[in-house]
Amino acid sequence: MTASKRVLVPLAPGFEELEAIAPIDYLRRAGAHVVSASVGAQNPITGRNRLRVMADIDLDEAIEEWGDAWDLILLPGGPAVDRLAESEALMGLLRRRLGEGQLTAAICAAPRILALAGLEPSTALTNYPSCAQDLAGFPGYSEARVVVDGHVITSRGPGTATEFALACVEALFGADKAAEIRAETVSA
Amino acid sequence: MTASKRVLVPLAPGFEELEAIAPIDYLRRAGAHVVSASVGAQNPITGRNRLRVMADIDLDEAIEEWGDAWDLILLPGGPAVDRLAESEALMGLLRRRLGEGQLTAAICAAPRILALAGLEPSTALTNYPSCAQDLAGFPGYSEARVVVDGHVITSRGPGTATEFALACVEALFGADKAAEIRAETVSA
Repeated sequence: MTASKRVLVPLAPGFEELEAIAPIDYLRRAGAHVVSASVGAQNPITGRNRLRVMADIDLDEAIEEWGDAWDLILLPGGPAVDRLAESEALMGLLRRRLGEGQLTAAICAAPRILALAGLEPSTALTNYPSCAQDLAGFPGYSEARVVVDGHVITSRGPGTATEFALACVEALFGADKAAEIRAETVSA
Repeated sequence: MTASKRVLVPLAPGFEELEAIAPIDYLRRAGAHVVSASVGAQNPITGRNRLRVMADIDLDEAIEEWGDAWDLILLPGGPAVDRLAESEALMGLLRRRLGEGQLTAAICAAPRILALAGLEPSTALTNYPSCAQDLAGFPGYSEARVVVDGHVITSRGPGTATEFALACVEALFGADKAAEIRAETVSA
């Protein structure tokens, strides 16, 4: 039996709901063990559009339980990004995994966090259109809806969240599983 | 000053997260007063993919406060649909508004509820592909990703939820606002 893939989705107040929930939805459909972890606030965590979501666990508890052992860390966008960047625990996790070439994903305003965590400037990536300046140091910046460059997956906004989610499913489970989830969800 | 548009989104255990949250997200961005209302369970309400969401209010309380005065009632899909169909309060609301031609939307498995609530069989509509048989009495059934027929908006699944959300924004706020939300969210 193959152990399930473990995915960490940090949720801070102001997270963009769709950018968090489309990947959680699709990755759980694919069979991943997705852990949503609260950062800088207690449950419920209130999103950018006032949706209140119960995180599965606090980030500190998640790190206590699983340490660095994540198959994917996925960062939603929204105003929450500033809070995520202030978490030394999260930034430590990200610095280590980016240094080791482990799968990491970010959408909307969140790719800035990858830059802060030391992402190699030769990496091709994208982010929310009005945040492009945050990635001025990345000559491989692209306006594609989803960019996959090795172990780094980035995307643009809530309207690209299902495409982003499918790219994450494919990176963890392969193209056949992604095609299955695409059909099952009636994704474009 | 124009009063905000009021939208009811009933949430029962097993609701499909993306089908509820994409419309809540986009409609709130457009300025709607969206009320998520728990049906048949207390907070938090657990979705099909184990996301736990806090509804804003219980359906009975929502009806006590606003009665039938909703600019839109929007029904997410998922296994929750069976629970929604068992709610006499909700079914009463739906029967009255469909009889009066008031704006109503349903996605995935949820268009079946509209049929149960007496939707005119000449209405063009769609639903989740494997649920098509639920709408066998509707000769205008379509496989389009979103179908708008007068006051009834239907769609297919989690992967069509942003298109469904934009159609709802357009029906309540007009094409210019929908174009604005489409651009702001980087929707296709």
